Amino acid sequence: MRALQLTGPGTLELREVPVPEIGPGELLLRVGAAGICHSDSYVLSLPFAMREDPLTMGHEIAGTIEAIGAEVDGRVVGERGIVYLCWSCGVCRECLRGRENVCLAAGRTAMPPCPGLGPDGGMAEYVAIPANSFVPIGDELDFAEAAPLADAALTPYHAIRGALDQLQPGSTAVAIGIGGLGHVAVQILTAITDARVIAVDIARDKLDLAADCGAALGITANDDTAARILELTDGRGAEAVFDFVGTDATATLAVRAVAPDGAYRMVGLGGGVPGIDAGPAGGPGLPWGATVRKSYAGTRSDLHASVELARRGKVRVEVERFALEDGRDAFERLDRGEIRGRAVLIP
Amino acid sequence: MRALQLTGPGTLELREVPVPEIGPGELLLRVGAAGICHSDSYVLSLPFAMREDPLTMGHEIAGTIEAIGAEVDGRVVGERGIVYLCWSCGVCRECLRGRENVCLAAGRTAMPPCPGLGPDGGMAEYVAIPANSFVPIGDELDFAEAAPLADAALTPYHAIRGALDQLQPGSTAVAIGIGGLGHVAVQILTAITDARVIAVDIARDKLDLAADCGAALGITANDDTAARILELTDGRGAEAVFDFVGTDATATLAVRAVAPDGAYRMVGLGGGVPGIDAGPAGGPGLPWGATVRKSYAGTRSDLHASVELARRGKVRVEVERFALEDGRDAFERLDRGEIRGRAVLIP
Amino acid sequence: MRALQLTGPGTLELREVPVPEIGPGELLLRVGAAGICHSDSYVLSLPFAMREDPLTMGHEIAGTIEAIGAEVDGRVVGERGIVYLCWSCGVCRECLRGRENVCLAAGRTAMPPCPGLGPDGGMAEYVAIPANSFVPIGDELDFAEAAPLADAALTPYHAIRGALDQLQPGSTAVAIGIGGLGHVAVQILTAITDARVIAVDIARDKLDLAADCGAALGITANDDTAARILELTDGRGAEAVFDFVGTDATATLAVRAVAPDGAYRMVGLGGGVPGIDAGPAGGPGLPWGATVRKSYAGTRSDLHASVELARRGKVRVEVERFALEDGRDAFERLDRGEIRGRAVLIP
Amino acid sequence: MRALQLTGPGTLELREVPVPEIGPGELLLRVGAAGICHSDSYVLSLPFAMREDPLTMGHEIAGTIEAIGAEVDGRVVGERGIVYLCWSCGVCRECLRGRENVCLAAGRTAMPPCPGLGPDGGMAEYVAIPANSFVPIGDELDFAEAAPLADAALTPYHAIRGALDQLQPGSTAVAIGIGGLGHVAVQILTAITDARVIAVDIARDKLDLAADCGAALGITANDDTAARILELTDGRGAEAVFDFVGTDATATLAVRAVAPDGAYRMVGLGGGVPGIDAGPAGGPGLPWGATVRKSYAGTRSDLHASVELARRGKVRVEVERFALEDGRDAFERLDRGEIRGRAVLIP
Repeated sequence: MRALQLTGPGTLELREVPVPEIGPGELLLRVGAAGICHSDSYVLSLPFAMREDPLTMGHEIAGTIEAIGAEVDGRVVGERGIVYLCWSCGVCRECLRGRENVCLAAGRTAMPPCPGLGPDGGMAEYVAIPANSFVPIGDELDFAEAAPLADAALTPYHAIRGALDQLQPGSTAVAIGIGGLGHVAVQILTAITDARVIAVDIARDKLDLAADCGAALGITANDDTAARILELTDGRGAEAVFDFVGTDATATLAVRAVAPDGAYRMVGLGGGVPGIDAGPAGGPGLPWGATVRKSYAGTRSDLHASVELARRGKVRVEVERFALEDGRDAFERLDRGEIRGRAVLIP
Repeated sequence: MRALQLTGPGTLELREVPVPEIGPGELLLRVGAAGICHSDSYVLSLPFAMREDPLTMGHEIAGTIEAIGAEVDGRVVGERGIVYLCWSCGVCRECLRGRENVCLAAGRTAMPPCPGLGPDGGMAEYVAIPANSFVPIGDELDFAEAAPLADAALTPYHAIRGALDQLQPGSTAVAIGIGGLGHVAVQILTAITDARVIAVDIARDKLDLAADCGAALGITANDDTAARILELTDGRGAEAVFDFVGTDATATLAVRAVAPDGAYRMVGLGGGVPGIDAGPAGGPGLPWGATVRKSYAGTRSDLHASVELARRGKVRVEVERFALEDGRDAFERLDRGEIRGRAVLIP
Repeated sequence: MRALQLTGPGTLELREVPVPEIGPGELLLRVGAAGICHSDSYVLSLPFAMREDPLTMGHEIAGTIEAIGAEVDGRVVGERGIVYLCWSCGVCRECLRGRENVCLAAGRTAMPPCPGLGPDGGMAEYVAIPANSFVPIGDELDFAEAAPLADAALTPYHAIRGALDQLQPGSTAVAIGIGGLGHVAVQILTAITDARVIAVDIARDKLDLAADCGAALGITANDDTAARILELTDGRGAEAVFDFVGTDATATLAVRAVAPDGAYRMVGLGGGVPGIDAGPAGGPGLPWGATVRKSYAGTRSDLHASVELARRGKVRVEVERFALEDGRDAFERLDRGEIRGRAVLIP
Repeated sequence: MRALQLTGPGTLELREVPVPEIGPGELLLRVGAAGICHSDSYVLSLPFAMREDPLTMGHEIAGTIEAIGAEVDGRVVGERGIVYLCWSCGVCRECLRGRENVCLAAGRTAMPPCPGLGPDGGMAEYVAIPANSFVPIGDELDFAEAAPLADAALTPYHAIRGALDQLQPGSTAVAIGIGGLGHVAVQILTAITDARVIAVDIARDKLDLAADCGAALGITANDDTAARILELTDGRGAEAVFDFVGTDATATLAVRAVAPDGAYRMVGLGGGVPGIDAGPAGGPGLPWGATVRKSYAGTRSDLHASVELARRGKVRVEVERFALEDGRDAFERLDRGEIRGRAVLIP
């Protein structure tokens, strides 16, 4: 079969490889679509390889069950679904609590094994997955629109769910960066809260996309953005700020725009440093009671919720489709900020 | 009456002043005791005055109702109580939700008016207070032990209550800095959670105090403290870290010692900057899912809870008593770290 | 001024009475509209009077501030608003926690003083209210549509907010009885959850109203309703059932239709007895983990949230307007089930 | 091996049977101890058999891993542990959320498969269990004291955890029935809340046991019990009432003794019917806002928490030990109310 593989630092190749074998507890999935995430791009930019062997990339995977390993109950060949990306241990305290995204087995600062980052991922014709990572999507959802749910919906859903207490009627939510995750975040906020959503981006067309997704207001990011948000919230700030970029500029904006007892969620991994200190508030720092959290992925239950939102038409991922062989081109366009929503590969 | 007043930057004077007049909705309290807080010390160190007129300090106040203003229901002369320190507006959205410590009227980065910081405080023979800030303590509690509940119990109680989800059986809590607030925090943690409490301080006698308060373990703060906490938690970190110091050193420790999905609460205002960035975890940074929060004071309901804990003997503030005229001496000993628990002035 | 008064058991009279005097802490409101609630009808049906003197009815009140009593801050003459109906003590533990609807001062099984049930209510040209019960509504909302928010939106909002944990994406909510409260409940569920809403009523036109309000499905109440709901939920039942009727029939339906760990909220006061026992599940009884709660009114914060939903156009109370002098006619039509939404009196 | 089996309605026999075979994903446990629960007694009293073949009873199981089936990771022979009793599907929405006790696969009013009730249980020398039901207990805990944690600690822990919001400092909790579950409930309440615990039982020695477990007060159950509890709570009622009996008498007591917004948890399955109706409060009925919940077992995470409480010495199950061959005698003594704490069989 064909697979888009990372063969060395920064080198992406479409290669012919064997269809994976599956063992007990596994499924073989015929890939229907695989999304391209900024984190794939980040991995591609690293000066070292993720593993010695060529690695098939792709952690946003949708497809059809082609074969079922021993000891797997409740699945049938031909079933359509997507893949939960935290291949967690399933037995630790956190997994038992349904918080597999912070699985103890992964260690303190790592993340659980993720297809396309350690094990082979879904930018290929077939992929082998643990049976318990399969989440059924029913018959209506298109594979290309379903695949990105695995990350582009899961991750914002988790971040938003953890801030629902802040997002009561009358509140304001800010989404910074209206890319693959951001445009889905706006839709989720619209579906499960009454918050007024303010979208922030540097590109006008991204703000248009945000408006289509339900944002009440779009603000072009510049030096006045924080002041503008304070003005729109009677000087109080937004009850929740979701940063899907994570640079110094967006981190600074988030700290300045979040309200007391508000929620600032760092989702984008741009390496930005928010200016927080333990001094008395009063400067431009974090207001009293606000929480800062580095949110990673989501739980399996969050993914089910994300799929439900998509099945009910509340979340629709905007996608641009590319053939597997055009994968490198898709990566390049993503890096140039030219993708509206999510780029998806169709094997 | 005599009052300990800030008469200029860094100048504390015992002065003879008139007994305050009270208006409608107010109470006149005969002060039984007034605690000295590190934040008083901080105010004393500022190069500017808090207000033009001399300011009577003291926001941890216990006493007896001496007179009752018009339009006050449900209070009687002679009643004993302490004073809730957030003199919030009472009508904004946050006040209505019972979150008076982030009262909207105070503005985004300020705190609500607080006795001893804007209005005159309790380091005097009498103090005028809003009737709704009075919290009855019954007859058993000693004034000297009750006064510090207003901050030294309220503030850690609020921080701990917001982290109860993290503090399930089997969890570990770290308290950094076993001073006035820290030694009460250890007692609260012991009373309302099953968490194993690890106390961290630079002074051996503070760790002894922590042990008396219920800490399972005391660690002398040094470069290995984070490593030691990780070792004690199977490399995972503590589910909650309460920092009552807030310097660079303790902020760094907190970030390194907190677990994924854990709670790091900045309570002490030492100006420290925690090393947090929006980059992929993996370095010494904040683990996934952990929240950082700058916790200020607590709600009126939190103060009631703190009083209940004291009345039931679960919380007992360790105090050293000083006469009002020895106030300056008490401040100096506090600054030198020589107070065990809380210094309290008895007018 | 004219006032619609209960002058004896079952006797409603339009009388000429003096404009009320206001004391400190009170406001005089010129009434813009007053809603008629089923509980007014219930009071009218009682064989005894609520108090000896004639009682002006009406607890859903909207109007304009006409005069301001002493010791009231922050209000201006001419301001438009509605009235929070729990005139609670404001100082007890529950009030401090922002749960004024279960104010301790009211006693264990009573409710806090409510205009139109103890103090004079709003079916008159003017009404005197405690200043802290005034909730501003801004300039856009029509008085007739705003008045019912005070109960017909507040009460379902409170019941729904307490069941948000059950109402995650993919869940099903059932609203039984699409009258004044029920049709607003459907709108609130649609605004702040992704739950699929099933409306149940005996009247076809009420189900049409529910559909206009966002219900996915309307079911005519009969002996098969529970079975139909189980069928629609794969045998599992609905995650939340809100009963706005409260007869034996609806209580039985609710118990049979709610899911394990689900929420059954008794809002309507029809005196129905749900069949619950402490035996092993397996019969038609309450499933494991489901909670039954008799929900009363809501908190002041809930009312603010309800107003926000109305201001943002997410909740729009369907009203039929009547002149004050046609009040008795309006009551009769309500009793005959002929009101679509809420009947509102315009003084 | 020897096994205590239900061989027909009401017939308990000690029989010689083969050691169970284990398949993939299973463990063979050498039983160290098996607790006897009132529900075992209930099963014994049924006029029909649970299944056609003889059934080995016992769902509170502690033991040592003797053999490990294929496809099991992370377990070693010789490891000591107890058995989680909800053998749930592991893949449904509720299981994914860590709420295996209401597993969807079990159907709406049933419970998940439970050893000793469908599959063979632990009153035998060996038992086969699903590997994921094994919860390690370390080396310190005695098997006889550990086995009852599987139900007698798990079930009250789950009920209490769901009422933590009610059990803030200053609150009162009532435990009705100080048997196997009740005496553990008192210890858990003492360990993780500041609530004042009132124990209610008909037997004086059970109240003594409650006092040893941390109860502040013991009340002999009679017609005045509800009045006495109201008296002790200023007429307000207890914030939480846990009924481990579940007869008409205890259900009536619970409804009369619980506070507004309080929690009444039905744990005992005595078939009692609480007097609840949808009428206006004011009679002896359920107060506003209180929730009634039929609580079943607990989650796997709750069992881990229960084990942690036991390992830290906060929970210690009072046990009476019996040899397997004395099983029938133990059942009879349990039925006569003669067991202090829990009866445990030692194979």
